[in-house]
Amino acid sequence: MAKDKKPRRPKAVTPKGFRDYFGVDVTERKAMLDTIAEVYHRHGFDPLETSAVETVEALGKFLPDVDRPNAGVFAWQEEDDGDWLALRYDMTAPLARVAAQFRNDLPSPYRRYAMGPVWRNEKPGPGRFRQFYQCDADTVGSASVAADAEICGMLADTLEAVGIPRGDYIVRVNNRKVLNGVLETMGLSDDAARDDVLRTIDKFDKVGADGVRQLLGKGRLDASGAYIDGVGLSDDQAEPVIAFLTSKADTAAQTFENLRAAVGESKVGAEGIAELETIAELLAAQGFGPDRVEIDPSVVRGLGYYTGPVFEAELTFEIKDEKGRPRQFGSVAGGGRYDDLVKRFTGQAVPATGVSIGVDRLLAALRAKGRMGGSEQGPVVVTVMDKTRMADYQAMAAELRAAGIRAEVYLGNPKNFGNQLKYADKRQSPVAVIQGSDEAERGVVQVKDLVLGAKIAQSASLEEWKSQPAQFEVSRADMVARIRAIIEGENDAV
Amino acid sequence: MAKDKKPRRPKAVTPKGFRDYFGVDVTERKAMLDTIAEVYHRHGFDPLETSAVETVEALGKFLPDVDRPNAGVFAWQEEDDGDWLALRYDMTAPLARVAAQFRNDLPSPYRRYAMGPVWRNEKPGPGRFRQFYQCDADTVGSASVAADAEICGMLADTLEAVGIPRGDYIVRVNNRKVLNGVLETMGLSDDAARDDVLRTIDKFDKVGADGVRQLLGKGRLDASGAYIDGVGLSDDQAEPVIAFLTSKADTAAQTFENLRAAVGESKVGAEGIAELETIAELLAAQGFGPDRVEIDPSVVRGLGYYTGPVFEAELTFEIKDEKGRPRQFGSVAGGGRYDDLVKRFTGQAVPATGVSIGVDRLLAALRAKGRMGGSEQGPVVVTVMDKTRMADYQAMAAELRAAGIRAEVYLGNPKNFGNQLKYADKRQSPVAVIQGSDEAERGVVQVKDLVLGAKIAQSASLEEWKSQPAQFEVSRADMVARIRAIIEGENDAV
Repeated sequence: MAKDKKPRRPKAVTPKGFRDYFGVDVTERKAMLDTIAEVYHRHGFDPLETSAVETVEALGKFLPDVDRPNAGVFAWQEEDDGDWLALRYDMTAPLARVAAQFRNDLPSPYRRYAMGPVWRNEKPGPGRFRQFYQCDADTVGSASVAADAEICGMLADTLEAVGIPRGDYIVRVNNRKVLNGVLETMGLSDDAARDDVLRTIDKFDKVGADGVRQLLGKGRLDASGAYIDGVGLSDDQAEPVIAFLTSKADTAAQTFENLRAAVGESKVGAEGIAELETIAELLAAQGFGPDRVEIDPSVVRGLGYYTGPVFEAELTFEIKDEKGRPRQFGSVAGGGRYDDLVKRFTGQAVPATGVSIGVDRLLAALRAKGRMGGSEQGPVVVTVMDKTRMADYQAMAAELRAAGIRAEVYLGNPKNFGNQLKYADKRQSPVAVIQGSDEAERGVVQVKDLVLGAKIAQSASLEEWKSQPAQFEVSRADMVARIRAIIEGENDAV
Repeated sequence: MAKDKKPRRPKAVTPKGFRDYFGVDVTERKAMLDTIAEVYHRHGFDPLETSAVETVEALGKFLPDVDRPNAGVFAWQEEDDGDWLALRYDMTAPLARVAAQFRNDLPSPYRRYAMGPVWRNEKPGPGRFRQFYQCDADTVGSASVAADAEICGMLADTLEAVGIPRGDYIVRVNNRKVLNGVLETMGLSDDAARDDVLRTIDKFDKVGADGVRQLLGKGRLDASGAYIDGVGLSDDQAEPVIAFLTSKADTAAQTFENLRAAVGESKVGAEGIAELETIAELLAAQGFGPDRVEIDPSVVRGLGYYTGPVFEAELTFEIKDEKGRPRQFGSVAGGGRYDDLVKRFTGQAVPATGVSIGVDRLLAALRAKGRMGGSEQGPVVVTVMDKTRMADYQAMAAELRAAGIRAEVYLGNPKNFGNQLKYADKRQSPVAVIQGSDEAERGVVQVKDLVLGAKIAQSASLEEWKSQPAQFEVSRADMVARIRAIIEGENDAV
């Protein structure tokens, strides 16, 4: 250590792509997570909290050819044994590891929920962060589509529980097996050709049916003027895919009819449609109508990844984007069935289905609608008029707290009284308590109603100012009761 | 990618030194964190959640001489700019960074609390984990010992709030300045000699006053038979240190008297004693007597690190160690004043004081005392007698949930009914609901009281078995009410 060298001062910065959360941003997210956990728990899901760190091997990111296996994850090498560890990038990979590791101890089916941060080693950008919250529920070990239906219904219940009213969201359900049926009907047996079609379908949200038709055929000129090569299918060949994507009709019965036409004779396709029909029936029996959960074959997100039913929750109300243009808020949760979850570890296929809620997006949605956010009331601030009487001020704060009122004593330099009131304003305190030696002798305190004070300062005439004093004297014995009345009055007025 | 090579199966293991938490272990910790947050919040502390990741530079772990600056932390290098990032190892370093970065926006003083995991890159061992929870409260920007007193009182309140009764804990307070006074009196002006004495004092908990006396002098034969060299002070020189460490008397007044003798003419020593006296006065005024917070100069933990008052919370009850021998539970929280917090970043000294609660240890203590832990009641399990009537079973579960009762439908293969009841047992379900086609036709369900059933199976005579059936038939319409009665009865019986 070069002790005599003067070290450069470190920079005080949040690392790129990471965020700090203050005050109400912390408590609002916590309240949302609590609500979601309660809904999941009531459905029989048990909490699981794995460590933030996994072996890179267990995460499935181990590529033997590369030097640093950290593409997409934050990884580092252990010093003693050279093992690579990494931060989890989602909640599903740790679940797969746990389901394999503890398969003899866990109940089967195993319903679990998990919530917490995940980390992505991606280039940060506007609105793209490298740490964010996920909130997952999964059922491991059930092949029944009743498990999928349960997840969809629970998702709808959860959205309503956190404050999205019915009508402002829709859970949409599709099924990979139906698409497989379509591909079968098309005669695409070649894996590479199927992958091409899957990749193309993924762009349906962006380019629409005509765009997909072009991309499945000869190709397409995109918005930037670049020509995107097509898959090279004939129009006839491409048609079943388009029929599938656009099969949603006014009634579920008609949608199923359209799907049956799209899959033709395919057995897996028929199986997929039957699954969707069962899901719709199960949900209807529990009171989830198509206003909450609907079968919608245009849901393409995750079709490449999942092996059966696929779901997505969308918020359907409009918000204004950063340029003031109205746009749909869009997706806040997604999931589906993935039956190879545990197989990587044990060789044994274990059916599983689950959903992941993007908590940060959901919070943003509620804030955009004004249903959350804004400021939290600060503590009552007991000011310090006389430094030698600190014990009295502390006793006042303790008394307020004992009565359930958030309170603190000003702990900065008390010399400048104006600074104490400025501090109370910055804290968004509802009330400041003032007691000089004169008041102490007379057994009284001054109570300053800061909310009323600010209101009067903004708008009141001189007469109102006089008739509605924002500061008044109360006996020390009445202090707690009077302050409580002020705070309760303000809360009522909100 | 060698696609044709059969990949080795990954091992499903929690990484060394990390843990997974299931069910009640998650909810109990959450409940404790919630309670602690509530106490902190009521004292005017605001939540802060920084990202898990910091720049190594900001953490203060940057050593320009070493290749991998990750001694003690989990660190990795960014690919684009070569910066080193790391997981936070405590909550104080991120607070220092935030206090510097946002110094113009935060109120001053800034009271904040933070809770979450921290990571240590240490050799894991029994009971030593590489990820654990901390729960901190700090006041930044107040030089007043009233801030220290507030933290000590809040710590006592917090311990009681989480379920440690008065008498089972003690918050002990010492002051680094008093020790500085002692060192001054000893005529130790040499930094190296002071460091030697500080390091020796650190062993007071282990070796006691006589051991410290030997270690300050010629040296000492330790328990393993190794000879530990001493600092080389004369007995006369060492005496003030021993006097300081053993100065605690039956009354605070006598303790202060003893301390005054130990620091002699030292100005900083007198200042330290005055601070302790003020802290004792402030706490007494709020009702914190020496049964909850006491001045105790034998607290040595952190004396090397902190710059003023130092506090430690200890649980005073006995538990049995792994060999069944009784021992004191010991420390569950510690903290103190550290006035150089922000200086590293800005060059400007900012006074700060705070405390960190070891949540995992506190949970262990409550479990050791039987005040927490054990099992949580599972959900009501609606069994599946008839696969084609899944929608009816789902509707039953939905109805139970709507009534606030945790419930789920069995989602495994329903063929073997015994497996369904085994599943319900494993889930610790209070009740199983059974409805075959016969019951469905008659509009009834079978309700099986699993708690009562287990009790009867254990101990009942044949007569009791008959008179107290654990399974009975109820009309479908009465199902929810009857199940609620069973669950409430069980909860009352606990």
